[in-house]
Order: sequence, then C-alpha cells, then structure tokens
Amino acid sequence: MFKINDNYLKLPGSYLFSTIGKKVAAYTAANPDKEVIKLGIGDVTLPLAPAVIKRLHSAVDEMAVKETFKGYAPDLGYEFLRTTIVENDYKARGCDIAADEIFVSDGAKSDSGNIGDIFAVDNKIAVCDPVYPVYVDTNAMAGRTGVYNPETEKWSDVIYMPCTKENNFVPELPKEEPDIIYLCFPNNPTGTTITKDQLQVWVDYALKIGAVIIYDAAYEAYISTENIPHSIYECEGAKGCAIELRSFSKNAGFTGTRLGFTVIPKELKCGDVMLHSLWARRHGTKFNGAPYIIQAAGAAVYTDEGKKETKEQIAYYMNNAKIIRDGLTGAGYEVYGGVDAPYIWLKTPDKMTSWEFFDYLLENLNIVGTPGSGFGPSGEGYFRLTAFGSLENTKKAMERIKAGKA
Amino acid sequence: MFKINDNYLKLPGSYLFSTIGKKVAAYTAANPDKEVIKLGIGDVTLPLAPAVIKRLHSAVDEMAVKETFKGYAPDLGYEFLRTTIVENDYKARGCDIAADEIFVSDGAKSDSGNIGDIFAVDNKIAVCDPVYPVYVDTNAMAGRTGVYNPETEKWSDVIYMPCTKENNFVPELPKEEPDIIYLCFPNNPTGTTITKDQLQVWVDYALKIGAVIIYDAAYEAYISTENIPHSIYECEGAKGCAIELRSFSKNAGFTGTRLGFTVIPKELKCGDVMLHSLWARRHGTKFNGAPYIIQAAGAAVYTDEGKKETKEQIAYYMNNAKIIRDGLTGAGYEVYGGVDAPYIWLKTPDKMTSWEFFDYLLENLNIVGTPGSGFGPSGEGYFRLTAFGSLENTKKAMERIKAGKA
Repeated sequence: MFKINDNYLKLPGSYLFSTIGKKVAAYTAANPDKEVIKLGIGDVTLPLAPAVIKRLHSAVDEMAVKETFKGYAPDLGYEFLRTTIVENDYKARGCDIAADEIFVSDGAKSDSGNIGDIFAVDNKIAVCDPVYPVYVDTNAMAGRTGVYNPETEKWSDVIYMPCTKENNFVPELPKEEPDIIYLCFPNNPTGTTITKDQLQVWVDYALKIGAVIIYDAAYEAYISTENIPHSIYECEGAKGCAIELRSFSKNAGFTGTRLGFTVIPKELKCGDVMLHSLWARRHGTKFNGAPYIIQAAGAAVYTDEGKKETKEQIAYYMNNAKIIRDGLTGAGYEVYGGVDAPYIWLKTPDKMTSWEFFDYLLENLNIVGTPGSGFGPSGEGYFRLTAFGSLENTKKAMERIKAGKA
Repeated sequence: MFKINDNYLKLPGSYLFSTIGKKVAAYTAANPDKEVIKLGIGDVTLPLAPAVIKRLHSAVDEMAVKETFKGYAPDLGYEFLRTTIVENDYKARGCDIAADEIFVSDGAKSDSGNIGDIFAVDNKIAVCDPVYPVYVDTNAMAGRTGVYNPETEKWSDVIYMPCTKENNFVPELPKEEPDIIYLCFPNNPTGTTITKDQLQVWVDYALKIGAVIIYDAAYEAYISTENIPHSIYECEGAKGCAIELRSFSKNAGFTGTRLGFTVIPKELKCGDVMLHSLWARRHGTKFNGAPYIIQAAGAAVYTDEGKKETKEQIAYYMNNAKIIRDGLTGAGYEVYGGVDAPYIWLKTPDKMTSWEFFDYLLENLNIVGTPGSGFGPSGEGYFRLTAFGSLENTKKAMERIKAGKA
C-alpha cells in the first residue's frame, strides 16, 4: 500500500488571501454602491513593455519557421540570456559571476521552493518574521520544520528572526546556529532594506558558522538609495556562502509570463561537493528549460529600449509608493518601506490588530490591504499596502485616508 | 554547518547523450566530408502549427494592453484550458474527469519528477526496463531507491520489470509488491503499446494491492490502432489508483514552448487523504502557473484548425516511422514499435551490443541513433531510431540501410 508524504498534513491552511477575498466579497455584496480600492495585491498591473512585446512577437515568428524553430532549450538556460544577465546584473556591479553560474528558470517561487531539494532533511532553517510563506511551507513539506503550534503560529524546529520597528526591520544574528538562512531584501512584506555593511555581517556570520544564505533579491530593481546592495555578491566572501534568487516578475512585469534565475557560484561547497553540481543535476532532471520565446523576451529587458521602458514602469509604481507614504504620514501613521520597494508597511493605529485594521479600512474607507499578521506572528500590529495599483486609485485611496472616510 | 542531500551523490552520471555527442563530434572531425544523419533525437523538428502561432501572437497582444494584461495565472491553470482539455481528451473518450482534476504545468518532465514530493520516502517503486531515466533518477534523489550497483546498473530497492521481445514489451506483474508503479504507453524508448485489456490487468492489480500507477501518456496522440487506450481512465476503476501525465511536447511540438498537465482524480486516496489535495498544495506552493500566452496557445491546439494542423504534423512523423520500419524490415532487421509511437526499436543484428551497433551505424552508414542499453539493462541488444527527422533524411538513411553503406 502506497504511503503519502505525511509532512503535508502538518501544514496549516493558507487562508490569508482567501479570507481577504471572502471578506471583500461579503462587503461588496452588502454594499454594491461602494467603490472598493484594492491595494493589497502583490501583482503588477502595467502591461509588458513595448520592447518585450516586440521580441515576443519576433520570437513567435521564429517558432513558425522550420529553419528558426526551437525544440528543447538547454536545461540551464540559453547562453544568450545567461551572458546578458551576467553582464548587466553582475559584472556591471563588480560581481564576478560567470554565465555558467546562472540557472534560468520559470520564476523565483519555483526556485525558492525547489532549492531545498539539494539539502539534507536535517538542516535547521532560519527565517525572518514576518516572511514570504513559501520558504517555510516548502521546508515543512520536506520535513525540516518539526511540529506546528497553532497557538504561537510557529514551527518547533524553525529559527524565527523578528523584524520589527525596534530593530529597523533588519534581523539580528540568531542565538541558535542555523544551517540555512533565508534573507529577502528589499523585503516582502515590510518593504524595508539592508545596507551593504549590514548584509556583510550576515555573510561573515554564514562563513564563520558554515551556513548557506538563500538570498531572495526579487525586488532589487526598486532600489534607489545608495549603498543598498542589489546583489549579495557585492559583499566580500558571499560567493562562498550564498545562493541568490532573481525574478523578472517585478522588474519587468513578468508575473504572468514566468521567468527567473538562480545564481550558484562554483566556490559554494559542502566539503568538496559543489552545490552548483547538485542544482545542475536537479534542474536537468526535474525541469526542461523555460520557453524559448520567454527567454528571448527576458533578454529584451536588457536592451537599451527595454531598460528605459521597464525603468519607467518601476518609476510609475514608486511614484504610487511615495503618494502612499506621504498620504499615510500626513494622516499621522507610522510608515515604513516604500522607498526601495513597492511595499508600504504601516503600524496599525490605536493598538488595533492587523485584522481589526483590515476591517476598519474595508468598512470605513473601502480600501483593501493585507494584514501583517498573515506573514508571521511578528507582523501582528502591522499592515501592508502595495504600490501596484493605478495612479488614480492610489491617489483616491489617500484622499480617503486624509478624510478619514470613503 | 549545512548538509547536502547525500542521495544526489549516489546517482550515476547521465552520460548517454553526452557520450553520443562526443562520438559523433569525433567522427565528424575525422571525416569532415561525410554527411551524418541524426535519427537519435527525441525532439520535434517541425515548426509550431499556424493556429498555435496565431494564438501566440494574439495572446502577446493582450499582454501589451492594460485592459487585457494578465498577471499571476491561477496556480492550477486557466479555466479555459482545463475545460478544453477535459472536453477533448477525456469526456470525448467517455472518461469522467472534471476540469478541477486537471493541473496545468510546464511539462511532463517536471511533473514526472515532482510528483514524488507527495509520497513518503518509504514507498517501493516499480519501473519498466528499459525506461525514461527521469522516473528512477528523481526517486533516487528522494532516497527511495537504495544503493546503486554499477555492475548490474540497478538500484537495490527498485523493482525492474523487463520489457523485451519475449513479453512483447508489456511488463508482467511483478513478484514483489510495489507501492508506486510507473507505466508509459505508448512507450519511450520501445515505441510499443499496451491494449486496453492489458492495461486493465494493471489497474485491477494496483487496486488490489493498494498501489498507485503513474501513467505517462505523453505519446498518446501517435496512437492509430483500435483498442489501444489513449488514457488510463478508459480502464474501469482507474480513477481510484492512477495519476496520468500528459504533454503538449510531442502532440503539438511544444518541446521548446513548455506545457503539460497532470490528472489526479479526487477519488484517488490514501486513507481519507486525497492525493488531489496534496498535489494542489504542492503546485500552489512551489509553482506559479504556466505563462498565460503558452496556456492560450495550448487551448488553440484543440480548435478545429489546431487539431487539423497538429494531426498533419503527426502524420508527417508517422510516415517517417513507416519508412524506417519498412526500410529496416526489408533489410532483414527485427523491428518493433513505430506504429503507435514515433520511436522504432530494433534488435541489433549478429549479437552486437547496443554500443557496437551504434559505432557500426555511425562509421559505416553515417547514421546516429540511440543505444538501447542507455535506457536500462534490458535495453542491451536493442537500438532506438526516431521519426522526428525530415522526410528527406529519413529516406536517405533507409537507402543507406538497404545498401549497407553510406
């Protein structure tokens, strides 16, 4: 008789966005005349850039003709894309990463979920709290997280590193030694960042204790402040301890187009085994390459036209972020993030819980956001708004915040 | 100190296609005037069908405009595609599969590799021998296969089911009881099939012993013979014991476009846990949907135009298959497969090993194929040719076979 992976049964339900959906639907049904503005969504809304569209069309045309048709892609990604990534994202920033250390994939969610495959079950993971749920859930599926306690909303074998206003949302080195450390900067959900010096502390720590850092840099394109690292490889020694995850989802609007990559430097080793070899084997065995037309479109993001157009999109979202920051600050809220990231993280007023504030915003101002507690216990008392709405709706939402009513 | 997944270190190198590549490169370098014909490749060569190209272009146009732009896809696939699949691939064949039992993915390789995630490590797997290597390798990565013996080329904890001319390439029920049974029909690499009655025996057996069948039907579009099942759900009771994997790679030339799906009926359970729920959780946590434009193109395969055009492509390949079968038979070879599948499996002549025959074909006839032993020990003494070349090259290769020289 076959047996299932029991670890799946230990997972708590993932009810955050479905609960939000149900509450919004109920409110809308009861108040059909109210215009609800959604600033909870973590998905882009602007269409793909013209340079990307143009390349998608020309790549489709290549697939229509025998002479230029492309069958199976190289498992690890087309050379043209890997080279372009290395030149633009790494060499241009002084990071010595080689094209064959880039593994092209269908996105950072898959990579951040699958990367656990190459590690033993008995590794202790450390995560920020609040956190993107995929890191923890996928480790739970692998049996790496112990027992879940619904009271504390924590797993027994996970090291949680609180990120609150008290530590400026930068985690402190944990007391207990982890084996695998997940870091995401600019951060989802808090929208805050880490300086190069602060990140260097983590790299030094990982090298000292023999831990590996899984560094999620999916939001690096939103960085505007000097001295905020775009890549962990800007830190000395990082090639010996860090894996970096990147995405085209937020820098070029590829959430529905799917493209990302993982960087594993060859000098990152366990004994004399390169993690690079293990991931190459995993990628080559359980994945068959991202579609040619999507990889071609990804390379178009790095053309002069593509860079200009995607920068404009980011500027559009970051203008929304500024409007939200200014609007909330003007209305007396404590506001974090939103400078180098498309997320604004605010402290709920009057000691409201995250969900109480959700209900207040929905019912009184007709604005939808995301309760901070949905991202982990230390998110309680915080709330996330995103800059991915339209300019018009963002402005309208801030007028409601100012007026204290819809 | 972090620890790696040691199971990866037990994997033997996957040298089949790289050894072939090296041998061909060496021969070509030494004989630059010779025209080498490649019939080893398992990849399609015809361009995408016009109906697919047309839909790709229109979907790209949708992504260019704010009003029709698509962000994150539904985790489990767009409703329009899931419904189309169900109508055409299942209801039309009398299989009662629901749209929400279809999980759209980026291909059957990913799915056949990832499906192991939802099962416990201590399940015993059974595979055909010869076999598509992904089934075994991904189970080895999960620690499910025991120790590899390089002498026998077998894992200690895997049940191998020989498929040779003696059993007409249909495996016999194993003596030792497996928990998970991998079956692929029409088969890669042997190109042979199984009748509905023969498959019913497997379904009945799985139901009796409480095993789950992972049924890879990636080549079902090549079936022309009556009474060969296109889906395992044509067998009675299969919804209680079988997961089916499908692909757009070979029926519509999507090898470089990437689209597939897995079917998990809700009545397939372990105790009271639906495998459907586990896979939904896995898919939703470690995957972010196939690209919208690719899913739209996938639906175009099922339009009248799309069906007509992809049928013509399959007819083109199957005409090649007939030419190869006839050519080989006429030259006195023992030939199998190639009737309901794009693969032709032949017995090497004069007791040559698979690799000896490879060298003979390359050096004397300048034809490249794939040694059967590369797919497992019972493939020794067999050889695979594929129908995916051009008509011209296929004919030319058979002229060389007939003449016994290039």
